[in-house]
Amino acid sequence: MPTNSPLRFVIVGGVAAGASAAARARRLSEAASITLLERGPDVSFANCGLPYFIGGEIKQRDALAVQTPQTLKALLALDVRTSTEVTAIDRAAKRVQVRNLSSGTTETLPYDKLLLAPGAVPLRPPLPGIDDPRVFTLRSLGDMDRIKAAAAGASRVAVIGAGFIGLEMAEQFVHLGKQVTLVELTAQVLPPLDQPMTRLVEDELRKHRVDLVLGDSVAAFEAGDALTCRLASGRAVTADLVVLSIGVRPDTVLARDAGLTLGKRGHIHVNGFMQTSDPDIYAAGDAIETEDFVTHEVATVPLGGPANRQGRLVADHIFRPAETKPYPGALGTAIVRVFDAAAGLTGWSEKRLCAAGRGYRTVTVNDNHHAGYFPGAKGILLKLLWDPTDGRVLGAQVSGLAGVDKRLDVIATAITGGLTIDDLAQLELAYAPPFGAAKDIVNLAGFAACNTRDGLVVPIDALPDDPAVQILDVRPPALVQAHPLPRVGAINIPLGALRARLGELDRTRPVVTVCALGKTAYFAARILAQNGFRVSALTGGIRAHFDPRSPAKLPTP
Amino acid sequence: MPTNSPLRFVIVGGVAAGASAAARARRLSEAASITLLERGPDVSFANCGLPYFIGGEIKQRDALAVQTPQTLKALLALDVRTSTEVTAIDRAAKRVQVRNLSSGTTETLPYDKLLLAPGAVPLRPPLPGIDDPRVFTLRSLGDMDRIKAAAAGASRVAVIGAGFIGLEMAEQFVHLGKQVTLVELTAQVLPPLDQPMTRLVEDELRKHRVDLVLGDSVAAFEAGDALTCRLASGRAVTADLVVLSIGVRPDTVLARDAGLTLGKRGHIHVNGFMQTSDPDIYAAGDAIETEDFVTHEVATVPLGGPANRQGRLVADHIFRPAETKPYPGALGTAIVRVFDAAAGLTGWSEKRLCAAGRGYRTVTVNDNHHAGYFPGAKGILLKLLWDPTDGRVLGAQVSGLAGVDKRLDVIATAITGGLTIDDLAQLELAYAPPFGAAKDIVNLAGFAACNTRDGLVVPIDALPDDPAVQILDVRPPALVQAHPLPRVGAINIPLGALRARLGELDRTRPVVTVCALGKTAYFAARILAQNGFRVSALTGGIRAHFDPRSPAKLPTP
Repeated sequence: MPTNSPLRFVIVGGVAAGASAAARARRLSEAASITLLERGPDVSFANCGLPYFIGGEIKQRDALAVQTPQTLKALLALDVRTSTEVTAIDRAAKRVQVRNLSSGTTETLPYDKLLLAPGAVPLRPPLPGIDDPRVFTLRSLGDMDRIKAAAAGASRVAVIGAGFIGLEMAEQFVHLGKQVTLVELTAQVLPPLDQPMTRLVEDELRKHRVDLVLGDSVAAFEAGDALTCRLASGRAVTADLVVLSIGVRPDTVLARDAGLTLGKRGHIHVNGFMQTSDPDIYAAGDAIETEDFVTHEVATVPLGGPANRQGRLVADHIFRPAETKPYPGALGTAIVRVFDAAAGLTGWSEKRLCAAGRGYRTVTVNDNHHAGYFPGAKGILLKLLWDPTDGRVLGAQVSGLAGVDKRLDVIATAITGGLTIDDLAQLELAYAPPFGAAKDIVNLAGFAACNTRDGLVVPIDALPDDPAVQILDVRPPALVQAHPLPRVGAINIPLGALRARLGELDRTRPVVTVCALGKTAYFAARILAQNGFRVSALTGGIRAHFDPRSPAKLPTP
Repeated sequence: MPTNSPLRFVIVGGVAAGASAAARARRLSEAASITLLERGPDVSFANCGLPYFIGGEIKQRDALAVQTPQTLKALLALDVRTSTEVTAIDRAAKRVQVRNLSSGTTETLPYDKLLLAPGAVPLRPPLPGIDDPRVFTLRSLGDMDRIKAAAAGASRVAVIGAGFIGLEMAEQFVHLGKQVTLVELTAQVLPPLDQPMTRLVEDELRKHRVDLVLGDSVAAFEAGDALTCRLASGRAVTADLVVLSIGVRPDTVLARDAGLTLGKRGHIHVNGFMQTSDPDIYAAGDAIETEDFVTHEVATVPLGGPANRQGRLVADHIFRPAETKPYPGALGTAIVRVFDAAAGLTGWSEKRLCAAGRGYRTVTVNDNHHAGYFPGAKGILLKLLWDPTDGRVLGAQVSGLAGVDKRLDVIATAITGGLTIDDLAQLELAYAPPFGAAKDIVNLAGFAACNTRDGLVVPIDALPDDPAVQILDVRPPALVQAHPLPRVGAINIPLGALRARLGELDRTRPVVTVCALGKTAYFAARILAQNGFRVSALTGGIRAHFDPRSPAKLPTP
């Protein structure tokens, strides 16, 4: 480029990454020519808010328009062009071919730096009947409007896919008074999480009369007065409206046609500064593959937070390359609210660690979201995973009725800082009765992890079937009677009586201790271990494994 | 000690640190003889909950008894002795002299390891009239009961001292329908915080009709039908009940008499394993001085969380010394709820950094506690302090109407991990509309800090008085009219018009940009700086400095 001309920065895609890049670019250069090209009619809208407008929880559609083409022009002096598609990139000439979708006219725009932020497209597999107009996917404000209009006349809704967006849609359709069926291919909701951690959400869905169909999938859509979703199992689900939320694929045809390097699954490959294989072409957001923060392996994280920060980083690298630090990689931190419950994860799950063949250890702990003696304390469940070689935290999953986001954020920050399980045990978090506990559940997870590492307790993930194993339920007898363990043959000795009644146990046979939350079982296991028993404790207790609302004590009469 | 005898562990003080040490010790050793000596009638009670029982927010007194002597005996096989005072330590013979306060009998108890967890005593300065029975301090369940009983017949209450406990008491007395006067020596509530960060809490107190008397103190109490608090200013505050919450002093007479090393302010000095100058005597909790996490200087942090974890560490070091990691030092993380607001801090404040002569930089940012487009978004204000030499986070203060605890915890974890302002900018926190934002306020603080470090913006802490400085208010004119800047002579050019109206500003004179939250002022400052102006931006905006509820935009009609 001629050195005295202002830099021409062309951005393809005007939502999260694209709009962030444009805004940051303008802060860094009043002189640059910044052009924002968006295929759809809207820019910089709050796509994470779409389900909530459909369900009426967000009442004003305007609230979703974070910026409009007009405000972007006024505040940032951008050349914003909506309904404008980029059809080709001429890398040699550094030009993009642009078509106005309203007028059909085409033109050529030169660039010095180009950002591809095209996002991802909801999957629509080629199933029989998929083109029925009652089968929707949700990506744009237009999709949102169409689903909202269709929902007005629908009484039965099927949501296909119980990932984050599927759960948000199911919740919002219940808010609208619809009869909701939620179909999920895997045996659980929220496939990125490890299974016991999703029980509370599943329970919450059923409590709100969502018909939860797990381990099944749609084979075909059959048109009629209503639409019949024929499932792989043979079951038929009748619906007036179907929302498909089974995943996304990166929208990378343009990048591929331009010869840019793509990853195995079609994502645009970028370096730490979001540069594609052509250093003058950047890419950011849902369409790229980035690095995993922990392992530095390739990762794809189609989430709004990373997209926004990646877009910002692109502008930094264009205008201040020497001062720009590379993208640190993604943790995949994500959360969803489902009625009164929430669940989420950060970093690695057990299933990912297993699949990758990486060593790990794990504990699951229950507690209240703030001091139990303060009114309104709600249950929370935290699963922690760490590296046995150095104690570093690898990931966590949290579910509960309050305070879930806080613990995910603390552990995301801990992973970012390379903290170990010993550090978690000593974290000094904010405590006043309305907000936390003297020993927060994050501290408890650190304690439990250190106890496991140090051999003070052997956690076990499930009750063994081996009849030689003695199952010892250490809850108070009245609680056992009110909430029996869902298996026969357990011995009940409450913790307070255990030392006196050790003779009732067979020292030659292994023992598994069980309680409501997992803590008392650990206490009992310590007593038994020091008395020569081979003992393990059910991690997370009955609440984690059998009943997410299992009480820790009986209500005071 | 004879090698085959069980270890004798004697603990003086049975609340936070003492009870934690006893519980952990029993998990580590079924064989040990563990004796818990408590001067008061109660052990292991939730002392942070006392104000809330007085105010009736906690309804059941039993809820505060985390454990009783009976449950501790049953569950932990402890020898628990309440109403039992330790009168002397014979370090040479390794014995403590014990007096039963009920029976008056004395005896001698041998120890192998001793833990002093005596806590701290509320200050009661020798003011005239201080011994009036209507002047209370709050430490024990007994104090709580006495205040609750006195409150039943009181209509006017004076709380002296607006620290964390004073604020909790003021709030709870308002809940009880009392007419509350809160007197604080310094010019602000929450003296550990930097002043602008306390405005929301002060506003919230006034909104709830607390008579807030700042910069004043009690000189004398004058008895009459009611009690008159004569203030240093001469003002008289009439009350039926007074609660003094002006600080605590460590309860360390026993330690001093035993010749243990004390710090300058009378706290028991310990090493990283909580050992006093006598390695067989440990100390933990409010009575000790420990290390500051950031500087490793001596610090005193009389808070429940650290006390609990220190007590646990003592047991670890006694029973598993080789495996025990030293206490990492304290951050002083603390929070208080005041009606609908909350405020707190972690790490170093600006006033402490100034007093210590340490270099620092700071920014203050406003945002919503979750996505602004999602219903229920509440304002939050975050002040970040970092080390200019390496960008490491030194501390933060947060105030707001929701989500305060989460941000304090994230930054406490960030400090623990040695994270920098660049790391905060990239933190990947949990985002779904009900829980966060694509760019959380912690990210925004990181952005703002990096922009400051990199010279992209010059933040300013207050509007300068110099008439040569042009004050540029960049809010929309209608908003300026509805919520004028509390000073005359500001120029109003809304951001969207600024590029076109630069000619209205004098390029030879400096400019300070101002807006509601601080963000638009930064945007404006970027435009001006790139156009050759000398410009700084008011950090935190009008909301931080003048009106904690200053709106960012006018309500939609």
